[in-house]
Formats: sequence, C-alpha cells, structure tokens
Amino acid sequence: MSAVPDHRPAADTPEGTPNPTRVTVWNENVHERTQPEVAERYPAGIHGAVAAAIGEHLGPAASIRTATLDEPEQGLPPDVVDTTDVLVWWGHLAHDRVDDALVERVRERVLGGMGLVVLHSGHFSKVFTRLLGTTCALRWRNGDDRELVWTVDPRHPIAEGVPSPLVIDRQEMYGEFFDIPAPDELVFVSSFTGGEVFRSGVTFRRGHGRIFYFSPGDQDYPVYHHPDVRRVIANGVRWARPDQPVGPPPELRRSPVGWWDEEPATSPGDASPGSAR
Amino acid sequence: MSAVPDHRPAADTPEGTPNPTRVTVWNENVHERTQPEVAERYPAGIHGAVAAAIGEHLGPAASIRTATLDEPEQGLPPDVVDTTDVLVWWGHLAHDRVDDALVERVRERVLGGMGLVVLHSGHFSKVFTRLLGTTCALRWRNGDDRELVWTVDPRHPIAEGVPSPLVIDRQEMYGEFFDIPAPDELVFVSSFTGGEVFRSGVTFRRGHGRIFYFSPGDQDYPVYHHPDVRRVIANGVRWARPDQPVGPPPELRRSPVGWWDEEPATSPGDASPGSAR
Amino acid sequence: MSAVPDHRPAADTPEGTPNPTRVTVWNENVHERTQPEVAERYPAGIHGAVAAAIGEHLGPAASIRTATLDEPEQGLPPDVVDTTDVLVWWGHLAHDRVDDALVERVRERVLGGMGLVVLHSGHFSKVFTRLLGTTCALRWRNGDDRELVWTVDPRHPIAEGVPSPLVIDRQEMYGEFFDIPAPDELVFVSSFTGGEVFRSGVTFRRGHGRIFYFSPGDQDYPVYHHPDVRRVIANGVRWARPDQPVGPPPELRRSPVGWWDEEPATSPGDASPGSAR
Amino acid sequence: MSAVPDHRPAADTPEGTPNPTRVTVWNENVHERTQPEVAERYPAGIHGAVAAAIGEHLGPAASIRTATLDEPEQGLPPDVVDTTDVLVWWGHLAHDRVDDALVERVRERVLGGMGLVVLHSGHFSKVFTRLLGTTCALRWRNGDDRELVWTVDPRHPIAEGVPSPLVIDRQEMYGEFFDIPAPDELVFVSSFTGGEVFRSGVTFRRGHGRIFYFSPGDQDYPVYHHPDVRRVIANGVRWARPDQPVGPPPELRRSPVGWWDEEPATSPGDASPGSAR
Repeated sequence: MSAVPDHRPAADTPEGTPNPTRVTVWNENVHERTQPEVAERYPAGIHGAVAAAIGEHLGPAASIRTATLDEPEQGLPPDVVDTTDVLVWWGHLAHDRVDDALVERVRERVLGGMGLVVLHSGHFSKVFTRLLGTTCALRWRNGDDRELVWTVDPRHPIAEGVPSPLVIDRQEMYGEFFDIPAPDELVFVSSFTGGEVFRSGVTFRRGHGRIFYFSPGDQDYPVYHHPDVRRVIANGVRWARPDQPVGPPPELRRSPVGWWDEEPATSPGDASPGSAR
Repeated sequence: MSAVPDHRPAADTPEGTPNPTRVTVWNENVHERTQPEVAERYPAGIHGAVAAAIGEHLGPAASIRTATLDEPEQGLPPDVVDTTDVLVWWGHLAHDRVDDALVERVRERVLGGMGLVVLHSGHFSKVFTRLLGTTCALRWRNGDDRELVWTVDPRHPIAEGVPSPLVIDRQEMYGEFFDIPAPDELVFVSSFTGGEVFRSGVTFRRGHGRIFYFSPGDQDYPVYHHPDVRRVIANGVRWARPDQPVGPPPELRRSPVGWWDEEPATSPGDASPGSAR
Repeated sequence: MSAVPDHRPAADTPEGTPNPTRVTVWNENVHERTQPEVAERYPAGIHGAVAAAIGEHLGPAASIRTATLDEPEQGLPPDVVDTTDVLVWWGHLAHDRVDDALVERVRERVLGGMGLVVLHSGHFSKVFTRLLGTTCALRWRNGDDRELVWTVDPRHPIAEGVPSPLVIDRQEMYGEFFDIPAPDELVFVSSFTGGEVFRSGVTFRRGHGRIFYFSPGDQDYPVYHHPDVRRVIANGVRWARPDQPVGPPPELRRSPVGWWDEEPATSPGDASPGSAR
Repeated sequence: MSAVPDHRPAADTPEGTPNPTRVTVWNENVHERTQPEVAERYPAGIHGAVAAAIGEHLGPAASIRTATLDEPEQGLPPDVVDTTDVLVWWGHLAHDRVDDALVERVRERVLGGMGLVVLHSGHFSKVFTRLLGTTCALRWRNGDDRELVWTVDPRHPIAEGVPSPLVIDRQEMYGEFFDIPAPDELVFVSSFTGGEVFRSGVTFRRGHGRIFYFSPGDQDYPVYHHPDVRRVIANGVRWARPDQPVGPPPELRRSPVGWWDEEPATSPGDASPGSAR
C-alpha cells in the first residue's frame, strides 16, 4: 500500500476548495505474479496501470493509493477502507480468497456513500455480487475479438470525451445474458467480432453509494494501456466520488409524531447530507 | 379496412372467457404500391404480412384488421380507433402525411389504455415521437448487414420462445445513439455485421397504455416473413393488450378532503380499474 | 407444513390448462406463540391468514401450503423450496435465526425464476436484504396511525381492483428514507396520520425471478383481515408467478464463435425459456 | 427581459474557470397583474422571487435573467433561447397562449442539452407535456393543506442541504395519480394534511437535456419565499446545467461500414461531447 500523506474527506472545504478524492485501487495481483507475460504487460501490476490512468486524468483532484490481496489484511484494513472515497476493484482468480468480513466492510462503506468502480472480471467478485444480489453470470470467450464500445447515454459524465465507438482491437468477449439487476443507467453497450453484445458500462446506486461497472480490460490484453479505456475509468471514479462525507449505512430510525416540529432536523439523517439547518 | 364481425372490449367477460384482443395493423402502404419488388416481397402488403404473423400466433385470442393511409380518414376513423385494443404501426415515407388530429386521437387512446406496437421505421412516426417527446433519431445504413437480436431480459413475456440470438441474415442497420427516453424495459439489443449495436426491443408505459418498439423489419428485406420476428411481434401484441377496458386519458381531478370516507371509490378513477368495490 | 397433493410446475400444460401456482407462505410464527393477543388476532397464525387471503382470490389457480420456522429444516427443506413457484415471507423477531444455507437456497430459487412476496417487517429478513444488497432500513413508529395506500401505477396488475386510497384505520408507521435500490416499478405510496410517506408497494426483478414487497401488515393490528390488503397480496402472488418452469440461476456460459449457426438454440439458456425451436 | 452582460456557454473554459450558468426564468405573469393579493405576495413577480432564490444560492455561478409572456415574442425570442443553459418555467392560466412555435423551439433546445426546471402548475404547460408525451394530469385541492416534502433519494444533488421533511405550512394539494412517465429519478415525495401523496420532485432526461419537475409553489401561498423551497429550486438549476455546450437535437446519421477506422470521431456526434480526439 503506497503512502499518501493526507486523506481528508472528499467533501469540499468551507473555503470552497475541494479536497482531493481519496482513491484506492485494489487488485488481487495473482496473474502478475504467476504469469510472466502478464507481468511484462503490466510491470506495475494491473493496479499500477489503473492507478496511473486515474492519475493522468484527475491530477491533483485525486489522491491515489493501491492495495493488493497479498498485503496485510488483504490490503484493506479498516483505516484504509475508512479513508477511501472511491474504491476500484479488480479480481479474477482469487474471488473466493477475499474474507467475508472484508466484503461486509466494503459493502457497508459503499452503503454509507463510498463510490465503487468494478472492472472486468470483478463482475464475479464477492463485493459486487453481494451488493447486487444476482449471480452476475455472463457469456464469454477468450478469442481475440475486436470490441466496439458504443455510448448509448452521450451526456452521461462517464461518457465525457469518449469516442463512440471506442475501439479495442483485441479483447476477451463478454456477452449477454448478463445477470444483473436492471441498471439505474446504461452508459455503454459493446459488440464483438463474433457478433455478441454486452451492457459494458452500467451504473447502480446502493444505499448512499454509487457503483460503476465497466467490462473492458483483461490480464491477457493490454486494454488498460488504451487511452480511451483509461479515460472511462477516470471518468467513472470522478462520477462515483461522494458529494458528501461518507458515513455509516442508513439505519433504522424510530420517529415520534411530529419530531420535526420539536427539533428541526438536528440529528444526522433527519436532514439530507449537507443541510445547513 | 377488413371487416371483423365483433369488436368487444378486451377485458374478460364476467364468465371468465376472455374476449379476443382487437388488433388493428396500420401501414402507410406506399412502398408496396410504388416499388414492384416490395409488392412482390409483400403481396398482401407489409400490413398483411404483419397481420398474418399475429394471427398465426394468437389465433382466436386476437381479432385482427388492417388499415392503410390511402383509406378514408387515413384508415383510422374514430370508430376504428375506439374499438382497437392494440394498434400496430408501420410507416416510412409518409410520416408527414398523417393528420395531426389522427395522431392526437391515437395518442389519447394510448394514454387511455390502448397498446401500441411500433415497428422499424415507425421510430420517426408522429405517433411515436409525440408520445415519447424525443427525436427518436438514430444511425442507419442500408447495406445487407446480418442482424443478431440478443435477449437481455430472458423472462420478459415478449422474449418468450424467441431464440437468443435471433438471426436475420440480411437487414438494414439501425445503430446507436438512439434518441429515446430511457425505456421502462430493455428486452433486446442487436448487433450488425458492421459492428454497430442498437436497443432493438424496448418498452414504455405512457398514461394507461403500453408501448413496444421493435426495430427489425424493412421493406427491402423479407424480415416480416422470418418466423422468429413474427413471434416477437405477436408476443408484443399480447403483452401490450390492456388488462382493463380502454377509457379516456387520465384527467384533472378535484378532491375535497376525505372524499374516500364519504363515498368509497365509487367514481371511475378513484379506484384502480377493475375494482370490485 | 400442510399437505398439498399435487405440485406440478406452474407453466401451462401443452393442452392449455394452466397448472395451479404452487404457493408457500412462510412465517417465523413467533409472535403468535408468545403473545396471546396476537394469537387471538390471528388464530391460524399470520401464515394462515395470508394463505387464506391468497386462496380466496386465486381459488383453484393456486395450490397453497404454509411453512414455519419451528418446523424441521425451518419449514423449507429442499423438496419444498424446489416445488414452490411463489414464496411469501413474513418475519420480524427471528430474522437472525434463519439459516444462511436456507437463505442461499431461497435466493438461488428466486434467481432461477421463483416469485417472492415479502411482507411488512420482512424488509429486514436475510432473504430480502441478501437479494437486494442494501440495508432496507426505514423509519418507523408503532402509534396507531391511519395508513392511506395510494396507487401510483394504476394499470399495474398488482393494483387491479384495489381502491386508491386503500384505507387502513390503525397501523404501524413505516416511513422514508427506505434504503432499497430504485425499484423496477413503484406501485403504491402510503401516507400516515403523522404525515410520513413510504414506498409501500415496489417490485424488483432479480435473475429470472420477480419480487414484490408490500409494507402494510403487522402482528399488532388486524391488517391481514383487511379485504383490500388481502387482494393486494393475492395480486402480488399472481404477478410474481413464473411464466416458465423455474430452473437453476443463470450460469457462466462459454461460447465459441458462431455457435448459433452450428446448433441453433438447442441447449437451455441459448434460447429464452419457452422457445419452440 | 433583464439585461445580462455576458452569456457565454456554460461549459468550463479551457483555463478551468467555469462560465456562469445562463439561467432564464420564464413566467406567464398573469396572476401578478390581475390579482392584487398575488402582486403583494410577489412584488417582483413569481419570476422575480424565483430568480432571486437561484441567485442567492448560486451567486456568481449563475447569470440570471427573467422573461414573461407579455414581452415581445413571449419573452423568448431565438437569441434568448439560444443563449440559455437552464430554463425555469412557471405558468398556470395561460398555457394555451404560448405559441406552438415557441414550444417547439424550447423542446429542441432541451433535446440539444438545455436544462429545464418546471415548477408547480407548469405540469400542464405545453413545454412539459410536449416533452413527456402524457397528460400530466393530477389530483388537486386548494384548501390550506400543510405539505411535507420527504426526500427518498438522500444523496441526489437536488436534495443537498434540504431537510427531510421540508415543511410548508400552507399550500395547494397536488395528489396522485400523477400521469407522467416513470421518472428517471424520484427525489421527493410529499404528503398533505388531507392524507394525499404526490411524487413532488422527479427528474427526466430527454435528448441531451435534463428536466426537473418540482411541485411546491403557488400564487396563492408564499411558497417561493420559503428558504428550503428556494434551495431546492437552486439545486435543480445547478443539477440541470449542461456539462457541455448545448447543440442541436440528435439527428439521423448515415454510417458507412467502418467509418470510425477511416476518420476517427472527427465529426460532432461521432464522439461524445467533450471528446479530445
């Protein structure tokens, strides 16, 4: 885990200067350590490539660190999760090795407002399937398909500056049926050389947090070096950034009659975040 | 307009025997009369081919007639609109010739509960754009593409019995960006030989009516003879069928305090359709 | 668990005669056994009252049994789950006592197509929160509020025959913020004497299954004897009924290029359910 | 129409300094000129009160002008519409007097990206119903109800800093059924003294534009002086602000095969707005 000096909340300071978004890029980091060709493709790891992509687009607006499965507490001890505004997740071979307690910690943080960007094979991660509830199963083929990523929501912030189609020359195929809940927003739809289609960029809101899933990217192809893919990931982080400080998940709340007449919106949650009352 | 002996409301009779769904297939019928190759492809007109498709799947559950632009009152005088449960719409060259008053009549009937199935180039019809509000513009190419129609909502009634992919060997390309409101349900997504994608089967609810748009189908290709395309259209009619008698569009309603205590749900609209109270 | 002679699949027979929907009403059955006034209010248990409500509306179209937490395997051994088309869930005090393995069994069955109707305090059940991913927390007060249930989607099948407002004279208050994913459909919104509002009737599709949550109903009030509440629950069961036989959840599927040209849609899942090909 | 010196596009300048959002507040301005008590309540007109509300919250981030029906070209000549980033609409008695050509001009501008905030009785304006397609009918009563506006999407930018409930002591009642398409986002739900409920804050995306409808506000009550109502309106303007310059509505686009390989995303629309390619 790389050190980052200051991890203040993402919410803007009273002076109007926004604090940088505290981004943590998590990667299981297995392929890179076991397959030389992957290590060669991603010398800094997939997490390193993704972190660099975010940094090159967001600049000082993001404070970025990385974390991997082989680190203590799987790279995400409470103090890291609790100081993360947007978590980026990459996993493939080791989904089952992620502790259930960590999954629950991440889920609670998302429900409390943290953004989550899930990439590619992360569709089967515990974190993603636990938050969505479905299997997130899909159709696939590792066969050197060309992927075309088409924008179907051109004014979505995540599509900003992204060509349509975004052309990826060689890529793994992910196809429908993709077993996810109907997304809150459908941003991208991909086609492949073989003719398959896939809802490749989708958003979900869960609790107070925003989730973006983006399917392009693979250990076997240099997709995370693709400039447009890098832009989409950075856009996704920017979009998922909480507007307000992250707090606990929503809680059961007992309400006497007319509580708002007695004590107008003084306790957290009685007003929306950021209330001036 | 072909004669149909009995056009009772679609709602089931008190005895539990459902009345047949009264379907009207409307076609501008211009290509068929001006281009011999289209007339040869569709000897009974596109309306005839579509009507036959519905009939072969719904059988006695549907009572089907056709109507065309060149008929008196453009084929849709009030007594026809007022006795139609599901209207199927095909137009291409003559959108502008459809009377605004007729468009409004159809819109009001849809808002009152009539189902509407819009096919292919009908995306630019006044009826469709008036109900949706957007331009419904899209990308296109008439270039002998193969279209693959993938099901992304496998348990939707419109997808019942439809293979995924549904393969259309030669077809006009319709591609994104398709300027429609976010659909209530996304049932089909297509890809084309050229790599484009399209939300090819989408549903909308407007007022009390259900709308299904399905893009496959063209005057230059024998798409309406394709058995799976025919099944989708019939499924769409079945899905769009109103569960309750079609009435006027929703109206402004003035409510005194506690009206429901005085006279429990006796006036139409104070209860949902079908209320037994 | 009451015996039911025949539990054939819900899908219609080839002859066109629909098999009855196999409904299982599950109840933790704790209040009824520990609080005499609840036992007096619901002599057959809440499960009994709910089962009777469904039976009186669906008649021979439903084959209904009940199951409770204190029965062997918590009332839901595999052979019961596997022969259930729609599961109705009531729980309050004993959510934590439900086995995780049972929760997963139910979740998989829902993803495979089983309908699920969750009532009232079931919002905090493991089954519901596991499928939705959020906390499902809400605001509440047990204070003899009058609840008015307003229909905001009048043509939804679940609203059929339901007066708007549906008036419940005395009821527990459930209020916003309700921490659920944006529902696929919003059918009912309630208000309470105290002025609170609640999204009281919402639907979700997860995997191949349909989920309906309906908040009215409580052990401390005779809500399940209310004729309109009973109708809503029966409508919900009818709506959640799978159109096709329930199968396994969606699975990862590996696809060679052009598999559909080789062997058109012969394996389950390559075509939508019910395909005649 | 009040003069505003500089109406540059809303998109941020290359230097990173955002241009102010160019807001036009339109009002039919009929009540204020015919009913002394309304004139007294809103000495600067409803448009003046709404403009001040936006200004007090957005400050230099907004450049605000007002326009009224009695001005030349109904206050919205092409050069005003074409230099407006967010249009706020208030009308009640004179919906029918708004020119259809103006309605179409506004609609095209919205589809091209302009934000639209529609207030209260504007639900029946031509601009709103033309963009949504439905009747937008509702239930109402002018009977001194207290309105409670509850937030059901606490992290939506429009809810930022808004107490839940927002309490309006005296207000006209608007109730369900509200005949609108299912909104893209449901932000607020209101209840009234009489027990009615209403989806009082809803968003829609149409073409490239964002639409926010907010129901509180009336000529007969001082609602637009309520500090929280003023905040919601300002939040709505900020949310509806286009991220990119407003352009023409989406257009039909003919595409040869593989056009993106020939000339990568050079023409407007082939890439999403803001593309750097």
